[in-house]
Amino acid sequence: MKFSKELAVPPHKKVRLKDYDTCETLGYETEHEKGDDNDKVDVLMEKTIRRLDDLQYTLYAEGKRSVLIVLQGMDTAGKDGTIRHVMSGASPQSCKVTSFKVPSTRERLHDFLWRIHQATPENGEIMIFNRSHYEDVLVVRVHDLVPKKVWEDRYDEINRFEKYLTENGTTILKFFLHVSKGEQKKRIEARLADPSKHWKLSEADLKEREYWDDYTEAYEAALGKCSTKYAPWFIIPADHKWFRNLAVSKIIVEALEDMDPKYPTPQIDIARMKRLLK
Amino acid sequence: MKFSKELAVPPHKKVRLKDYDTCETLGYETEHEKGDDNDKVDVLMEKTIRRLDDLQYTLYAEGKRSVLIVLQGMDTAGKDGTIRHVMSGASPQSCKVTSFKVPSTRERLHDFLWRIHQATPENGEIMIFNRSHYEDVLVVRVHDLVPKKVWEDRYDEINRFEKYLTENGTTILKFFLHVSKGEQKKRIEARLADPSKHWKLSEADLKEREYWDDYTEAYEAALGKCSTKYAPWFIIPADHKWFRNLAVSKIIVEALEDMDPKYPTPQIDIARMKRLLK
Repeated sequence: MKFSKELAVPPHKKVRLKDYDTCETLGYETEHEKGDDNDKVDVLMEKTIRRLDDLQYTLYAEGKRSVLIVLQGMDTAGKDGTIRHVMSGASPQSCKVTSFKVPSTRERLHDFLWRIHQATPENGEIMIFNRSHYEDVLVVRVHDLVPKKVWEDRYDEINRFEKYLTENGTTILKFFLHVSKGEQKKRIEARLADPSKHWKLSEADLKEREYWDDYTEAYEAALGKCSTKYAPWFIIPADHKWFRNLAVSKIIVEALEDMDPKYPTPQIDIARMKRLLK
Repeated sequence: MKFSKELAVPPHKKVRLKDYDTCETLGYETEHEKGDDNDKVDVLMEKTIRRLDDLQYTLYAEGKRSVLIVLQGMDTAGKDGTIRHVMSGASPQSCKVTSFKVPSTRERLHDFLWRIHQATPENGEIMIFNRSHYEDVLVVRVHDLVPKKVWEDRYDEINRFEKYLTENGTTILKFFLHVSKGEQKKRIEARLADPSKHWKLSEADLKEREYWDDYTEAYEAALGKCSTKYAPWFIIPADHKWFRNLAVSKIIVEALEDMDPKYPTPQIDIARMKRLLK
């Protein structure tokens, strides 16, 4: 089974998120969360992380192409946790993260893709966007921050921008971490109950939660209009954290395997170097 | 025993690198390299990495201060390997790396600290410099890339710049990974023998090796003139890779423990939020 095949949004598909089960596990048993050293999922996860690490190292050595990972999701969907777990094996030297917050004064003086383009990966790198240009058709649309005509044009603008990047050597993978409203409630409650997590909370989280249906609609539009052959969206069932981590890491591994990076042909004369080395 | 105390270069000390044993292990047995699951050093290393991970997470949550780590050393001293091992637990979200290569055309149009300043860490971050502004008193000095008067002034300029950064919330730790010329030979030989490592080699490495004594002298000057109370240099015995990793991670942990980061006081009304959460 290919995770990427199971979870990709086909181009031009009209997405209705309620058709996607946030608890889906593609046949993997959910029981293992209770903890068991020889657990099949844990073993698979560890193997996948190791494989991801190897592949990203070869991609880095090759130095010719790059990977851009977009992470989006409602609050508490697990963007930070995914980064932490999926990239735990990779070296921060070649696996980087850019978090997009509310645009700065300077960023506001430019078009919405300006700050995004500056953060795209160098050859050899994997770059993770924690939030992204999609906020410009999500929060911006939900809260009417620009006229409808402006955000409506952005879907095409995003597609053309992403096409351009892929034509220039960047593989793009976009993950929507799909949690249910009930699961979000549980997670906010868990944060409220744990003082070491209070710093992650703000009343704005509750405020945004009131716009759940509007966000759902905005996500459906983004997923439907911007899942392309060259830059697909994946809807990741994310109520189970272990499945979310497994699915995201499997899809990255599958993409890297398709890219099939190679160590570059050495530009050196080995025999000569051996002779010269004193 | 505090690693930072054992390995720091005292301010104003005249450094002679041949007085520093590249095989030193501060009493830890070297035997463990043969591999043993219950090995004392392996257990300590794992504990240290976990502690580092916890502390950097709290630093990130606190969001008020940052850490800048400078890694320098001769070719093959293990800069990449150190990053890979020491930061294996940390999230790439808050632990970042900047590699400084030969300056670009644009960078050359500016003073030497211009590109460095742009890469300093944000509050909450740990930033690792893989090579750094010190190249401007190392390779630049060895190969006479600027007049002596210019590089001579840089030691003070660097000290003042680093003082400024520390006054503004950045803790600076500078590591010189100290390998012997014999160990470098072995490592180049190992790379020559392993096709998957050929991409890391160039004839320039052999060329630079001919300047070993000049580099040694340039390092001695940098370590002696720029180890300060606010931004100390550590000389890390690096012939044993395991000791290098252990020493660097211990010193980072000791510095983070001194910083003692705290979760920020929540700005939220917990009771109110619980009431409002639906």
